[in-house]
Amino acid sequence: MAGEFDLIARYFNWPAQGEGVSLSVGDDAALLSVKAQHQLAISVDTLVSGVHFPVNTHPADIGHKALSVNVSDMAAMGAEPRWFTLALTLPEYNTAWLEGFSAGLKQAADDYGVDLIGGDTTRGSQTITVQIMGEVTPAAALKRSAAKLGDVIFVTGTLGDAAAGLALAQGDSSIYASGEKRAYHDYCIQRLNRPTARTVESRIIRQYAHACIDVSDGLLQDLMHVLKASQCGAVINTDDIPFSEALSSLHPPEQCLQYALTGGDDYELLFTVPDDQCDGFIKAMSEQQLSCQAIGYITDDAEQIINQYSHLLTATGFQHF
Amino acid sequence: MAGEFDLIARYFNWPAQGEGVSLSVGDDAALLSVKAQHQLAISVDTLVSGVHFPVNTHPADIGHKALSVNVSDMAAMGAEPRWFTLALTLPEYNTAWLEGFSAGLKQAADDYGVDLIGGDTTRGSQTITVQIMGEVTPAAALKRSAAKLGDVIFVTGTLGDAAAGLALAQGDSSIYASGEKRAYHDYCIQRLNRPTARTVESRIIRQYAHACIDVSDGLLQDLMHVLKASQCGAVINTDDIPFSEALSSLHPPEQCLQYALTGGDDYELLFTVPDDQCDGFIKAMSEQQLSCQAIGYITDDAEQIINQYSHLLTATGFQHF
Repeated sequence: MAGEFDLIARYFNWPAQGEGVSLSVGDDAALLSVKAQHQLAISVDTLVSGVHFPVNTHPADIGHKALSVNVSDMAAMGAEPRWFTLALTLPEYNTAWLEGFSAGLKQAADDYGVDLIGGDTTRGSQTITVQIMGEVTPAAALKRSAAKLGDVIFVTGTLGDAAAGLALAQGDSSIYASGEKRAYHDYCIQRLNRPTARTVESRIIRQYAHACIDVSDGLLQDLMHVLKASQCGAVINTDDIPFSEALSSLHPPEQCLQYALTGGDDYELLFTVPDDQCDGFIKAMSEQQLSCQAIGYITDDAEQIINQYSHLLTATGFQHF
Repeated sequence: MAGEFDLIARYFNWPAQGEGVSLSVGDDAALLSVKAQHQLAISVDTLVSGVHFPVNTHPADIGHKALSVNVSDMAAMGAEPRWFTLALTLPEYNTAWLEGFSAGLKQAADDYGVDLIGGDTTRGSQTITVQIMGEVTPAAALKRSAAKLGDVIFVTGTLGDAAAGLALAQGDSSIYASGEKRAYHDYCIQRLNRPTARTVESRIIRQYAHACIDVSDGLLQDLMHVLKASQCGAVINTDDIPFSEALSSLHPPEQCLQYALTGGDDYELLFTVPDDQCDGFIKAMSEQQLSCQAIGYITDDAEQIINQYSHLLTATGFQHF
């Protein structure tokens, strides 16, 4: 069996592409230079097999997703993602798995323009921890606590696809689908396995928005984090929540809504924009053909989410414990 | 069972003590300010139960060690440790374990003056990943590649204690020991379970040394990393390798040497000082009553370690794969 250092050299020792890396993989620590006038934004997420992805997920998808969900946190903070570390715990030295994982991770690193600058490999049950680091000016940082009364609540993209994809991946109904239905299944599973961190959208959002969060645990739970931190409430026009053609075709509206509100793993951005900034924001997004949808507004009814019919909506999104 | 957010709030949401923390636990990312003229040093280490510590290790020791081994990487880089994140994967919400772990981790954070600024908690087999971040001026950074021909090789403290402690922890002989012998056993087990990162020593070392590494995998393997990166060789005066009174009392010299050369987990610093700087360095260390010992010197015999009797020493230290 090859050694730990061989494993790193073979699968994870890519030359740094971007600026700011003085010393990368292979010393006691990496050395980075953060741009002047910028703060360092840091986030860490662990993926566990069978919890954060189905056990039969392709290793390339796992590698790609491990980085995407972390880059998504940078997008949610309004930060430019720059560097990451990988702490990889594996039960065995499985060449096929490592090749797939490494390829997917490298693809994501290239997609987002971030550099792997260090890590650790250990033996044990499979656990994948990525820590992402980025740069942000203090003025652009999108804190959860920054939502203000009257802000319009937006989301990027569509919600609920990943939850529908998870139900498909855990069941076996997709095996029997064909034609258009099969394409919709594949779309939802792709949304689960290959989420796209909204870095492009974030560059516009951070010029207009007050608060922002990424939707990883379902719309209700993630919105509640913003409301708690900002000490306000929200009205959500559930009819305005955007669904994909695939999701709408596969499921009745109530099921789509359920997936969007309490399903996880969409990694879209949920953010609040001051009312008088909305026109400019929507124009800037549409000029770059980026999708966003207003779904409600911020109220002073602390930590309460109600829908347009004045019904209380309670967050029962995914919790790990 | 309490939720993920409750777990973080209860056990890991300590107020930041130091400077530079604009935003800590509880948002999509933490925000840090790195001092002007400084680089950010980053390292990550995972601890797996049964691999990096015996399964019966007290959770407070695990928490303390998880941070110490990471702070040790900062010391080895010549960096001042400042902030860390914790990615904690646990099979269950075990209050007693979490209380112990949290207390040990907090103790270490206080000991080293570092702040917990973010993390992730997930369900799965127990895996503890800490990422440490520190600040270093480019001139003070102690890279593995910086050893030069003729440099004197030093180590801090004593070597081999942790390996002896591991043998004791894995066996049952310590149960029957009493008196002085019991004290020696306890000392070695303490060295295994509560390693001290050499941050105080590092502040002097970085003023004098060329290359530095921490001894985590045994003297030979860690020295070999320096020699490979620096493209040089070394002569080691094995008679000069420092042993503790406890180790020397428990084991014959050959066994002490074996533990020091190929045992792991000592977390002492191994570093090279230019010959003409040694007097000043030794004086500075002794003024602060810090222990160090010259054990050899750097040669141009690429990547070869020989002892004073011209015998080749081969690194067979601990590898995870």
